Amino acid sequence: MTILNDLAYVKKEVEKRLEEFLDEKISEASEISPSSREMMNTLKDFVLRGGKRLRAALVYYGYCCFHGEAGDAVWDAAMSIELVQSFLLIHDDIIDEDTTRRGGPTIHQRYHDLHLERYTRRDPRHFGESLAIICGDLALALANEILGNMPCNARFKSKTIVAMNRMIHRVVYGECLDILSEVENETTEEEIHMMYRLKAAAYTIECPLHMGALMAGGTKKDLERLSAYAIPLGEAFQIQDDILGMFGDEEKLGKPIGSDIREGKKTFLIVKALEKVHLPQREFIKNVLGKRDLSDGDLKTIKEIVVDTGSLDYSRELAQRLIEEARGALGNYTLRKEGKDFLAGIIEFIVQREY
Amino acid sequence: MTILNDLAYVKKEVEKRLEEFLDEKISEASEISPSSREMMNTLKDFVLRGGKRLRAALVYYGYCCFHGEAGDAVWDAAMSIELVQSFLLIHDDIIDEDTTRRGGPTIHQRYHDLHLERYTRRDPRHFGESLAIICGDLALALANEILGNMPCNARFKSKTIVAMNRMIHRVVYGECLDILSEVENETTEEEIHMMYRLKAAAYTIECPLHMGALMAGGTKKDLERLSAYAIPLGEAFQIQDDILGMFGDEEKLGKPIGSDIREGKKTFLIVKALEKVHLPQREFIKNVLGKRDLSDGDLKTIKEIVVDTGSLDYSRELAQRLIEEARGALGNYTLRKEGKDFLAGIIEFIVQREY
Repeated sequence: MTILNDLAYVKKEVEKRLEEFLDEKISEASEISPSSREMMNTLKDFVLRGGKRLRAALVYYGYCCFHGEAGDAVWDAAMSIELVQSFLLIHDDIIDEDTTRRGGPTIHQRYHDLHLERYTRRDPRHFGESLAIICGDLALALANEILGNMPCNARFKSKTIVAMNRMIHRVVYGECLDILSEVENETTEEEIHMMYRLKAAAYTIECPLHMGALMAGGTKKDLERLSAYAIPLGEAFQIQDDILGMFGDEEKLGKPIGSDIREGKKTFLIVKALEKVHLPQREFIKNVLGKRDLSDGDLKTIKEIVVDTGSLDYSRELAQRLIEEARGALGNYTLRKEGKDFLAGIIEFIVQREY
Repeated sequence: MTILNDLAYVKKEVEKRLEEFLDEKISEASEISPSSREMMNTLKDFVLRGGKRLRAALVYYGYCCFHGEAGDAVWDAAMSIELVQSFLLIHDDIIDEDTTRRGGPTIHQRYHDLHLERYTRRDPRHFGESLAIICGDLALALANEILGNMPCNARFKSKTIVAMNRMIHRVVYGECLDILSEVENETTEEEIHMMYRLKAAAYTIECPLHMGALMAGGTKKDLERLSAYAIPLGEAFQIQDDILGMFGDEEKLGKPIGSDIREGKKTFLIVKALEKVHLPQREFIKNVLGKRDLSDGDLKTIKEIVVDTGSLDYSRELAQRLIEEARGALGNYTLRKEGKDFLAGIIEFIVQREY
């Protein structure tokens, strides 16, 4: 699949640049104190630990959809979005109390363990969370610093900065809905749509594409058209994520199956199942949602309910419909071949992905 | 004192603009969901709850030191630094486990209370902290959005964005030292100097001044000269803060006396006292540092030790020396009168302040 080569190309380019940039920052931090150096090292390790770099690729190929003249500055924008991704994951992991991410410890877990090794005073958990909060803040400040320094058309640069930071508002709103959905009794399908649109569609697909387009001088009309492709595709992506998180392969996924259940997340899979089931099963679902020590048996039962109620099929069909919508939006739209091929490829990639 | 009028002028202007801006954001948030609206309202309340707006004033008068042509955009930069201040306070308050700020509840405390009112599921503390983390993130994204949108010279704008975000790295490094000083056995005077330089001097005085100067097209040389004034003044400001926090008037201060002790903060007052005292008092200090339920008697004893060891005098003299240094740096420097008068006035303000 060409798309895999395209993704691999961006991954290589953006990681090379991130490594250089973060090494420079480690030198700067070393002049301040050993603890600053340690934090920057920790952040570098986290940022470079992997991921598909889908967002960076969307910035790059979003740019390639148009005749841009930003040169290497587009890689700066791609680096920025990856730093924003790290910032969001670091804070998200505190909120979700996750201990592993991308096959290694989360930042708060790492500082928690470091406390256990070195110190006796104060609480290791609070210590870990405190340092992870500011480590995430650092990643966001680095992302904005890079954008501010981009050597390119100043008007396009300003628009890119505004787009990225406005996207962060939307992610925060999505996260807020998400946190509330875990404590509230009822979550409506509409709220889940909104959450997916804010947290996944706007952030994972639309914003990176817009950033790339803006770097190339894309117009308001261009952005709207890209959104018509990005929003349904992003929602489909999130629904796929939910399905993989429950029915996927733990090894390929890099995170434990069922973590959404353990965290009490209301996904389409769960909300649709809740609509269909009768009282005893309904109570069962409500009881295991948010259960940190979910047993394999509980998980198996939940999966059976999701299959038997038709909720899995519903989610699959919804994802399929959204993907068709994205495909239709893209088909009608004249773009440079290099960019458009990638956007078409990413649709197929999302349909087929297993991680 | 003219300086009070100058501060009052900036406070009025910047708060009026912040209110307008945040009201617009509340409208935007309302279209998304009630929880987004609630978060933006909570943030607005926090941002507008007060403070001297010293940083906004330094942006404005830093700009007035030069012949700038940024017009109203300088107020955007002033708003931004106040939003950054809120972002930092919100995260700091989680880290320090503070429940009140600016005469009202901290953000995490507010969401904690809201959880107790409305929900039964999950832990109110974690709920409060989670929402406060993302509410702080929102404030930082808003600050960067405002800077990105400033209608002014694009080169100056880029430099201002970079300056603000680079300052945030330094605050993070300072905070990191601060968190470590609470768990480590020994903190050196040099580490405290570094912490004060990063957290107070660079952030409270130097960065806002630089932002103002950059908005007016200030050169590298200008920034260096402003730093020669800002860094010693900022350190003196922090030392004053420590003294007021232990010997000041609780009502004027708006926060409880002795909170540094309760949080286990290593200030000059404490580190110098530890150097001088003998074993039983040394043990006493180490035992009460970080003691959440510090008694009035404990606090009185600590204050006596700080006075008797000459540590209070040491801090006062150090602050005085730093202030002389700032005065000297400013005296040699040709600047526009409106700006320079304010910078001179702020020295006297800091010498005399009681809150």
